[in-house]
Amino acid sequence: MSKQVGIIMGSKSDLPIMSEAAKALDELGVSYELTIVSAHRTPMRMVNYAENARKRGIKVIIAGAGGAAHLPGMVASLTSLPVIGVPVKSSNSIDGWDSILSILQMPGGIPVATVALDGAKNAGILAASMIGAFDARIAENLDKYKKDLKEKVEESAREVEMKGWRDRLED
Amino acid sequence: MSKQVGIIMGSKSDLPIMSEAAKALDELGVSYELTIVSAHRTPMRMVNYAENARKRGIKVIIAGAGGAAHLPGMVASLTSLPVIGVPVKSSNSIDGWDSILSILQMPGGIPVATVALDGAKNAGILAASMIGAFDARIAENLDKYKKDLKEKVEESAREVEMKGWRDRLED
Amino acid sequence: MSKQVGIIMGSKSDLPIMSEAAKALDELGVSYELTIVSAHRTPMRMVNYAENARKRGIKVIIAGAGGAAHLPGMVASLTSLPVIGVPVKSSNSIDGWDSILSILQMPGGIPVATVALDGAKNAGILAASMIGAFDARIAENLDKYKKDLKEKVEESAREVEMKGWRDRLED
Amino acid sequence: MSKQVGIIMGSKSDLPIMSEAAKALDELGVSYELTIVSAHRTPMRMVNYAENARKRGIKVIIAGAGGAAHLPGMVASLTSLPVIGVPVKSSNSIDGWDSILSILQMPGGIPVATVALDGAKNAGILAASMIGAFDARIAENLDKYKKDLKEKVEESAREVEMKGWRDRLED
Amino acid sequence: MSKQVGIIMGSKSDLPIMSEAAKALDELGVSYELTIVSAHRTPMRMVNYAENARKRGIKVIIAGAGGAAHLPGMVASLTSLPVIGVPVKSSNSIDGWDSILSILQMPGGIPVATVALDGAKNAGILAASMIGAFDARIAENLDKYKKDLKEKVEESAREVEMKGWRDRLED
Amino acid sequence: MSKQVGIIMGSKSDLPIMSEAAKALDELGVSYELTIVSAHRTPMRMVNYAENARKRGIKVIIAGAGGAAHLPGMVASLTSLPVIGVPVKSSNSIDGWDSILSILQMPGGIPVATVALDGAKNAGILAASMIGAFDARIAENLDKYKKDLKEKVEESAREVEMKGWRDRLED
Amino acid sequence: MSKQVGIIMGSKSDLPIMSEAAKALDELGVSYELTIVSAHRTPMRMVNYAENARKRGIKVIIAGAGGAAHLPGMVASLTSLPVIGVPVKSSNSIDGWDSILSILQMPGGIPVATVALDGAKNAGILAASMIGAFDARIAENLDKYKKDLKEKVEESAREVEMKGWRDRLED
Amino acid sequence: MSKQVGIIMGSKSDLPIMSEAAKALDELGVSYELTIVSAHRTPMRMVNYAENARKRGIKVIIAGAGGAAHLPGMVASLTSLPVIGVPVKSSNSIDGWDSILSILQMPGGIPVATVALDGAKNAGILAASMIGAFDARIAENLDKYKKDLKEKVEESAREVEMKGWRDRLED
Repeated sequence: MSKQVGIIMGSKSDLPIMSEAAKALDELGVSYELTIVSAHRTPMRMVNYAENARKRGIKVIIAGAGGAAHLPGMVASLTSLPVIGVPVKSSNSIDGWDSILSILQMPGGIPVATVALDGAKNAGILAASMIGAFDARIAENLDKYKKDLKEKVEESAREVEMKGWRDRLED
Repeated sequence: MSKQVGIIMGSKSDLPIMSEAAKALDELGVSYELTIVSAHRTPMRMVNYAENARKRGIKVIIAGAGGAAHLPGMVASLTSLPVIGVPVKSSNSIDGWDSILSILQMPGGIPVATVALDGAKNAGILAASMIGAFDARIAENLDKYKKDLKEKVEESAREVEMKGWRDRLED
Repeated sequence: MSKQVGIIMGSKSDLPIMSEAAKALDELGVSYELTIVSAHRTPMRMVNYAENARKRGIKVIIAGAGGAAHLPGMVASLTSLPVIGVPVKSSNSIDGWDSILSILQMPGGIPVATVALDGAKNAGILAASMIGAFDARIAENLDKYKKDLKEKVEESAREVEMKGWRDRLED
Repeated sequence: MSKQVGIIMGSKSDLPIMSEAAKALDELGVSYELTIVSAHRTPMRMVNYAENARKRGIKVIIAGAGGAAHLPGMVASLTSLPVIGVPVKSSNSIDGWDSILSILQMPGGIPVATVALDGAKNAGILAASMIGAFDARIAENLDKYKKDLKEKVEESAREVEMKGWRDRLED
Repeated sequence: MSKQVGIIMGSKSDLPIMSEAAKALDELGVSYELTIVSAHRTPMRMVNYAENARKRGIKVIIAGAGGAAHLPGMVASLTSLPVIGVPVKSSNSIDGWDSILSILQMPGGIPVATVALDGAKNAGILAASMIGAFDARIAENLDKYKKDLKEKVEESAREVEMKGWRDRLED
Repeated sequence: MSKQVGIIMGSKSDLPIMSEAAKALDELGVSYELTIVSAHRTPMRMVNYAENARKRGIKVIIAGAGGAAHLPGMVASLTSLPVIGVPVKSSNSIDGWDSILSILQMPGGIPVATVALDGAKNAGILAASMIGAFDARIAENLDKYKKDLKEKVEESAREVEMKGWRDRLED
Repeated sequence: MSKQVGIIMGSKSDLPIMSEAAKALDELGVSYELTIVSAHRTPMRMVNYAENARKRGIKVIIAGAGGAAHLPGMVASLTSLPVIGVPVKSSNSIDGWDSILSILQMPGGIPVATVALDGAKNAGILAASMIGAFDARIAENLDKYKKDLKEKVEESAREVEMKGWRDRLED
Repeated sequence: MSKQVGIIMGSKSDLPIMSEAAKALDELGVSYELTIVSAHRTPMRMVNYAENARKRGIKVIIAGAGGAAHLPGMVASLTSLPVIGVPVKSSNSIDGWDSILSILQMPGGIPVATVALDGAKNAGILAASMIGAFDARIAENLDKYKKDLKEKVEESAREVEMKGWRDRLED
């Protein structure tokens, strides 16, 4: 059966960041595939990937890249699927500003859904929410995920309130 | 029948920018509703809007705001629907940087799909692509939209190549 | 008896920074409470906290958060108490610019009293000065605090002048 | 009878911006005085102003300045009253960044409550909220002010929803 | 006979800026062609242009684009010819920073020779200097161009020195 | 008799800004010469100017330039005289950041005394203060200049205090 | 026999970065020379180097420098050869922004082909591509270099696809 | 006998940076004094220092500070001596931008001679050049200092040229 989300990244060195998207999708019960596609080093591989994603059943593409990050925008130009862009703060990036602006500031007609710098986990959750808009099971998983987030904060709050902040600092 | 996209903005003054999202959705055959919801001046109206959107059949929310722009992120915290954030370069914004960073840099767990500064048209197209992933008619409309974009560029190219750039400058 | 200052923060990970506010209030003789309230993960808890603070006798709220930091501004929208915002340079922040701009650039009508990046100590002193404007004992404590700051500089100056800077460098 | 708020600014050219603080205080029923004090051109006048403000009954000082804006921070170093700093985007400012950073990034021990660039209206409201924490009449005025803000948004929303956004754009 | 320089740009709206490259090449006696190629709206046209440029005798490609400017980098990934990138400060650009960083910060292996924001004239001169390294006639034209620049400065200097700056201000 | 200050600038287009330095020196009774010297278009003229300035009796050089502004730093590398650099916000500058950083961030060994963006008036005053450190007459002129600045502020203050700010706004 | 590329840098401390240009040229079969030339500490050495490069057979100059980086632009002003500028993130640089803007933002008439921050490898490849435009052997080497880049990405992709990303993370 | 240069800084923690100014003055044969003066913690000490410096024979003041750095500008407002400002990248600074802009962007009438971030060595050399403009012995020391800089670069160049860069990298 086909996967729902395609996760791609420009380089193997983006994997430690981009694998957070995969983990989030695992947790939310969304199927995915993950591979490496470089806009600049394998441009025709990128064209093929983007042009065939829809036919293969993919519903959302998550693309991560650093520096002058052209992968998310170029993929978006080659498919009508929604493309989520993850700016990666790679070693040659200027504090991530280059990655962010290269992905975010797309011209009219070709949007990329940009998430925070190194925000691959959020890219996974965002992809799940796009699918969850049409799939009640995934929506429930998202609701449960949010409930867990809330409960963790509430538990932290109780601990700090009861034991005092001095105690918590020593953790 | 319920609308598929909810467009909201923090102030009436955002309407000239945000109406571009509505126009794009009109062009792509996607139904929508549009209203004003301020995170800071009507916080409980925002809570109600976000908590009920899914039940009313909304599939995607587009939220635009300027300056310290909290509307997209706060709405995202209150729904499992995908939220597209449009940073608006309002009069009190610092070249738009405040709007962009307040929307883009969401913490882990609560993503906002951020588009370019004043990129409401792209927000509309992105919303359509999320729906088009599950609706073949919208996907066809998107493909046609892209084909039109391509043809306009090709026509510009022909004109410049045949008549020369000096002529085109005088247009 | 009710506390005068409420210190809140978006996450337990903000505690090492935000506890500096508590320490400053301790030193200046101002009572406070401290807990965790997340704008994005516990939005209704935030609404309740902000709406009830005044009734519980709180005079000033100090709110710290990082990244797209919506907590101080959202709390300010829900209370007429003065809200001091502390931009926190969290791990996912872009050198703190996102935290600063998300807190500082509030729209007309909903101010947040913003202090320096990671400036929780100053947030505590600022809260004390707001109370000290109406409470002579706290004002005296502030005057004494300033006198101590002055004397420490004068002592450093004497040391450098008498022993020479080469000696001081070796300290 | 003594005034509650002192509004000062570095130059007569800051008056169009800084008068918004005065208007907000008028609207909220808070008394104030307003004058010109330059940190760089009248340093001793500044020392005198700051050292005597408390004795004259002032509860909060609002100080506005542009470029390398030293007035708010220097006044804060000379009084235990809370000082609100308004970064002004003056003609010689670099998009306001210099004003913001010169006011916001105060060292530990000497806080300035910084508001948004050109945010003098918010400085007035913030001063009122500091006084309103101890004065029920001012607190009521603030609650009414917030209610008015809310109702204006709700009215805009009704108009846009009923007449449609196309109509509203033509306003 | 084949042209030596290919000038391309992402949109007809870039022509007023990019035509400065053509004018510089005209002045320096270098042949060129000029057309419109959009990375995002005509990706396959871009692939064809880049892959065939060398065969058609082109020696240097000048590519201009604004916002998230992917054209220069993508063309560079598809040819071994030198590619000069011109960041264009288009209407939707954030003061040009997005264009600059999207073009400049290319990953290792795929360089783009970036010139100043809106620096199309310099792109033309740079292309000429690349050709002039192997073509004495063009090198002479460049030397003459530099001599003219020098003489214009010297003439300005003489005027200011002889007539005084007050006079020159009135020009 | 030789002049005390040499004012140079990269282009005739810098004259409207740079003439403010000349006016300040006129007002403070310091003699000067003014001409055009371009680091990039007349490099050898720059070398000659810098190497001979001291011999001709010049005590301070003021150099203004925009964009990648190399003139002040290069002149400083060629003379032991103090060099004041004026970053000019020229038409091709990115909000002046390029001019500021190219002048300010000189490497160890070769300082440039940088003033504010477009701060040519301050460059003139700074040059006068360098001469005034050794010339009592110029020091007196500077003291008088400062006294005038103070009195103008005091007069503005009196006007605002007596007539009220509403009146002053209408000026 | 004369070398084709001249690599220069402002300081011995730039060698770890700038040697990447030499390595790239070695790999691509382009001859080069490498030395140290400081714009600020050896200005006349710089003049001599730039004025004689062409006569000595050099086809391209690569110049790297950090902070207020004047070397590439000054060399470009003294030769008609193409000059590639490498902004170096030296210890006294502000995150590299000073180096980038000092090199990139050259005035009309004097271009510098700027590459990414610390992008010396790309400077070497760019120099090779300029020579390869006129030398089929170098062009072939570049094509092979690109093919190798592509194959490495494809191999990474195969590994990730076959063994899964969890495995790859553990590498 | 009185000292020629006064070096002051806002905090003992600035000493490791600011002592570089003292070392440079020692090397160039210029006498100085060094102490600690805080604009915010000892404002009246600052007033006294600045107002008496000239009478005590000081010719130039070097003032260093970090964050919202008001010391150099406030001292400049209180004396007619030239004031050199050193922006210090202190621990609470935002990459130094706050220190730079607070010192550089002084309003018309009150200049500060700003040097590079952490550029205390250059502040010392600049002070020496101001004195050297009127003192032939110091001027000679500066010329010798520049000659030494030149010779060190030439020696590095010889080493790299003769032994090759591979060898030098291993140093």
